[in-house]
Amino acid sequence: MNQQNKKIAILCHGAFNYIKNKTGNMLIRYRPDEVIAVIDRSKVGKTSDSELGYGGDIPVIENFNASKQYQPDTLVIGNASQGGFISPEYRQEVIQAIEYGCDIISGMHQFLNDDKQLFELAEKHGVSLTDLRRPPKPPRFSKGTWQTREIPVLLIVGTDCDTGKMTTGWEITQRLKAQGCEARFIGTGQTGILLSGNGVPVDAVVADFMAGEIEHEIDNASDGADIIIVEGQGSITNQYYAGVTLGLMHGAMPDYMLMTHDPAREEDVTDYPISTVGEVMQLHLDLMKNFKKSKFIGINLLTVALSKTEAMAKINESEEKYNMATTDLVRFGNLGLIDAIKRELN
Amino acid sequence: MNQQNKKIAILCHGAFNYIKNKTGNMLIRYRPDEVIAVIDRSKVGKTSDSELGYGGDIPVIENFNASKQYQPDTLVIGNASQGGFISPEYRQEVIQAIEYGCDIISGMHQFLNDDKQLFELAEKHGVSLTDLRRPPKPPRFSKGTWQTREIPVLLIVGTDCDTGKMTTGWEITQRLKAQGCEARFIGTGQTGILLSGNGVPVDAVVADFMAGEIEHEIDNASDGADIIIVEGQGSITNQYYAGVTLGLMHGAMPDYMLMTHDPAREEDVTDYPISTVGEVMQLHLDLMKNFKKSKFIGINLLTVALSKTEAMAKINESEEKYNMATTDLVRFGNLGLIDAIKRELN
Repeated sequence: MNQQNKKIAILCHGAFNYIKNKTGNMLIRYRPDEVIAVIDRSKVGKTSDSELGYGGDIPVIENFNASKQYQPDTLVIGNASQGGFISPEYRQEVIQAIEYGCDIISGMHQFLNDDKQLFELAEKHGVSLTDLRRPPKPPRFSKGTWQTREIPVLLIVGTDCDTGKMTTGWEITQRLKAQGCEARFIGTGQTGILLSGNGVPVDAVVADFMAGEIEHEIDNASDGADIIIVEGQGSITNQYYAGVTLGLMHGAMPDYMLMTHDPAREEDVTDYPISTVGEVMQLHLDLMKNFKKSKFIGINLLTVALSKTEAMAKINESEEKYNMATTDLVRFGNLGLIDAIKRELN
Repeated sequence: MNQQNKKIAILCHGAFNYIKNKTGNMLIRYRPDEVIAVIDRSKVGKTSDSELGYGGDIPVIENFNASKQYQPDTLVIGNASQGGFISPEYRQEVIQAIEYGCDIISGMHQFLNDDKQLFELAEKHGVSLTDLRRPPKPPRFSKGTWQTREIPVLLIVGTDCDTGKMTTGWEITQRLKAQGCEARFIGTGQTGILLSGNGVPVDAVVADFMAGEIEHEIDNASDGADIIIVEGQGSITNQYYAGVTLGLMHGAMPDYMLMTHDPAREEDVTDYPISTVGEVMQLHLDLMKNFKKSKFIGINLLTVALSKTEAMAKINESEEKYNMATTDLVRFGNLGLIDAIKRELN
């Protein structure tokens, strides 16, 4: 994905909204010139702008067939179902795209390359199948290299899934770079990996190797870096994903953490009440305290569901309550958050 | 492994001691009549009793070849290396055992059945290759069924790896059964699975599915049970394994927990200081409190490295300090621990 000028169709039937189409949305946000259409039969005729509030007039179309008018060269599966299986319906679209000559990019747990029919079809048509969630082989076990590490690590965490951890990490990295700081971003999910071209899909790794794989990525990215920013996953308080969240944290052994939170939601993605920002921060510090004195450096709120006035009120409330720089980077810019990070680094 | 009267050779070069040869030792403890020899070239001439303090005069021999005098029908890999790879040396012994006609049982992450040469050799000689750590396929994602579960679940946890979680869970299950209680044991590692004939190797599962696989095992074992006892893994404070430990805990969502601890050790298996029993219990309760009011029901100490007097002093100290039934089940028997569990169930 590092080569420029792709023509990407995003496949996300029934899922083109600001939460579910995570991988697709990040392409629309950060590489809008490369996205030619979104495939979601439930929203035909809409545009990226009408559904997300960004991305301009990228059209929503009915199926892969309808995308041919834009001559796509790549089909990206935009959403990731719980469990990560590829439905028969998606499989049909993928087959058509291969036959048309598109490369396919998927972040599912079920791998395209393990599907004999798809694999052979792709060979025949000379296209590539990229499984973003394929874990490294052989896997890497922890060595505990954080104990002698000299580059500071900032881990982005959250009160739940879908609170903007990847976006926040990516935005911070770009903003620090723009100010001359050698910031490195490490993706830990399919979207972060697609965007940055590196990282490891931590939730797709055999469980025993979670910490080791993250540690390895950090060690690899350290040369010449001023700071390493690690995308977080899930939440330490989410009943489905907390194990992954903790494995990732102990692999990263962060010096700094940054909390992300959606103040418009009271229930998490499992319909369970979300803990307060303060409680979740304390739990992270407790789980780190055996190893190092880690510190929260700021808070990023996902305020898309709130009016501007409501959003600013939440930001001010958070700054006061937690005595910590708070913003919504995408909506309001730095608001002191980037300065707070740079103060720590100096 | 449920059929009786196997003749098992245990392969554990350089690892025949009370910590490293975990799987092998549990066979020696619970099925001594089926173990015909231990293969460890560093301890030739010793016996099970001389090295472990139990298991009688099971001999330690040099290699698989030397085991033929006892006509083994099964070779079990007794230890599990960090990372779970099969060394070339072990592979050679396995090949000889297959050619002799032995079934092979392994708890490694690296699967025998994925090794083309071993697989074909086993077919040729009509023997079976059992990979205890092979995860279910397709994997199972969480549904949150604990929210309507009626059977109480007891999870065995620890201040570190190798504190006797499996032994404690197994002993409790057998002792409750002997008193007429329908206790079910769920193995979560290779040894517990080998011993009980069921369970899931949670550290070998793709990380996203840890909680779902445990939940599924509990749901499956619930019919007619009075209590379900789940073997724990690793420790919430172990830098290499904490993610697995938490995924397992959130999959089990235990009503009760029981702590295991080795009072003779001050450092964990990563050479890091071990937290106190009190600190580790509090961390477990904090990580559970969002979901249910879970409760610690007792403590089992692994006192093999202490004299009887020292061990009893540690047990009394623990009872007093934590106001909780404490024993070393294997060494001193129930000492009120089984009664404490039964009181909760009535």
